[in-house]
Amino acid sequence: MTVNESGGSPAPASRSRRRRRDAEENSTRILDAARQVFAAQGVATSIEVVAEHSGLGLGTIYRHFANKEALVNELARQLLEAAVDLAERHVASGEDALRQYLWDVAELLGSQPGIIRTIWNFPGSETLTARSRTAQAGLLRRAQEAGSVRGDLVPEDVAVALFAVTGILDIGRAAAASGWQRHLEAVLIGWGTSGPGLRHAPLTAADMDDIISGSGI
Amino acid sequence: MTVNESGGSPAPASRSRRRRRDAEENSTRILDAARQVFAAQGVATSIEVVAEHSGLGLGTIYRHFANKEALVNELARQLLEAAVDLAERHVASGEDALRQYLWDVAELLGSQPGIIRTIWNFPGSETLTARSRTAQAGLLRRAQEAGSVRGDLVPEDVAVALFAVTGILDIGRAAAASGWQRHLEAVLIGWGTSGPGLRHAPLTAADMDDIISGSGI
Repeated sequence: MTVNESGGSPAPASRSRRRRRDAEENSTRILDAARQVFAAQGVATSIEVVAEHSGLGLGTIYRHFANKEALVNELARQLLEAAVDLAERHVASGEDALRQYLWDVAELLGSQPGIIRTIWNFPGSETLTARSRTAQAGLLRRAQEAGSVRGDLVPEDVAVALFAVTGILDIGRAAAASGWQRHLEAVLIGWGTSGPGLRHAPLTAADMDDIISGSGI
Repeated sequence: MTVNESGGSPAPASRSRRRRRDAEENSTRILDAARQVFAAQGVATSIEVVAEHSGLGLGTIYRHFANKEALVNELARQLLEAAVDLAERHVASGEDALRQYLWDVAELLGSQPGIIRTIWNFPGSETLTARSRTAQAGLLRRAQEAGSVRGDLVPEDVAVALFAVTGILDIGRAAAASGWQRHLEAVLIGWGTSGPGLRHAPLTAADMDDIISGSGI
C-alpha cells in the first residue's frame, strides 16, 4: 500500500484542490516578486533574480511561466486590468472625473516602470483595451458635457495622453516619477481652453486598433 | 613576387587609405540598411536581416559592430547628434523658435521609431545631451522673452515634452506618426496661457542628470 492510498491521506479530490491552491499561491508569489524586482532594478533583470527574490526554485518559476516574456505579459495584463477597473469605477461614479482618472491611472502606471511599455499590446490585450476605450470615451463625454474640456477632443486624445505619460515614466524612470504630473497639468490647461479648434487631426479609432493589435510598426 | 609587391599596385600608404575609405563606406552602408530595416520592421529585427538588406556578409557587419546593441547605439548617437544640430541651428537663428524646434525634432525622432527610446542614455551620450540641454534652455529663454510661453517653465519641461513625444511614437509606431502633433499642440496651448503658476514641480537638473546617466531606475 503506498502512502497515497493510506486511509490517513486526503481523498484525491481534496489533494487536487490543495495542489491547485498551492499552485495559485506560488503563482502569486512569483508575480509579486517579479513586480518588486522589475520596479527596483528594471525589466532587463534576469528571471534568476526573480526566483531568488521569490524564494522559489527556478524549476517552479518555469512550471508557471514558460519564459520571462510570459511573466512580463502576465504582469502587464494585471496592470492593464487594474487600469481598466479604475476607469470603469470613475465612469460609474457619475462625476466629471476625467482629470482624476488621468491622475490615478498615471500613478498606477508609475508604480510599475518597466512593465508599462508592454501594457498596450501584449497578446490577448484586446478585450481589456476595448473596455478601457469605452470607459475613456465615457469620461471624456462627461467632461465635455460639464464644460471642463474642449469639445473637439476625441477619446483617442485621452489614450495618446497616456502614451505620453508612459514615455515620460519609461525614459525618466524613478527620476521622473512625478515628472508626468506637470506635463499632464499643461495638457489639461490646453484641453481646458475654449480657443480655436485644434489644428492637427487626432488619431482615428482605426489607428488605435492598429496600435493595440501591434500591427502599427 | 606577390601581387602586393608588384610595381603596378598602389603604395602602402595609398592602400591603407583605400582600406579606410572602404571601411567607412561599409559602415555607412550597414547603418543605412539598419535604419531602413528597423524603421520598417521594428528594432527587434535580427542583425541577419540587416546584413541581407545591406548586401554585406554577416562577418563584415560584425567587424564593424560587435553586436546589435552596438549598432543600435551608433544609430542612436547619430540621431541624437542630428537632434542637437537642429536645436543649435534654431538657437543660432536668433528667432523665437521653440515651437518650430519641438516640431522639427519630433519629426526627426518619428523618422526612426525603434531607435528613439535609446537616444536619451546610450553609452557616451553625456556630451551630446549637455549640448542639447544648453540649446533647449536658450530656446526656452527666448520664447519666454518673446512672451510666447509662460514664465514658470524650466528647460526640463522641454525635455519632458520630448519624452512624452517619444512615448507616443514608441507605442503608437506608424499609426501615431502624426499623433504627437495634436498632443504637442495641446501642450503648447497650456504653455502659452498666462494663468496661475503650474502647481506641480518640474524635474530638476539633478533629475535630468540621473535620467541621462541611466541611474534613474
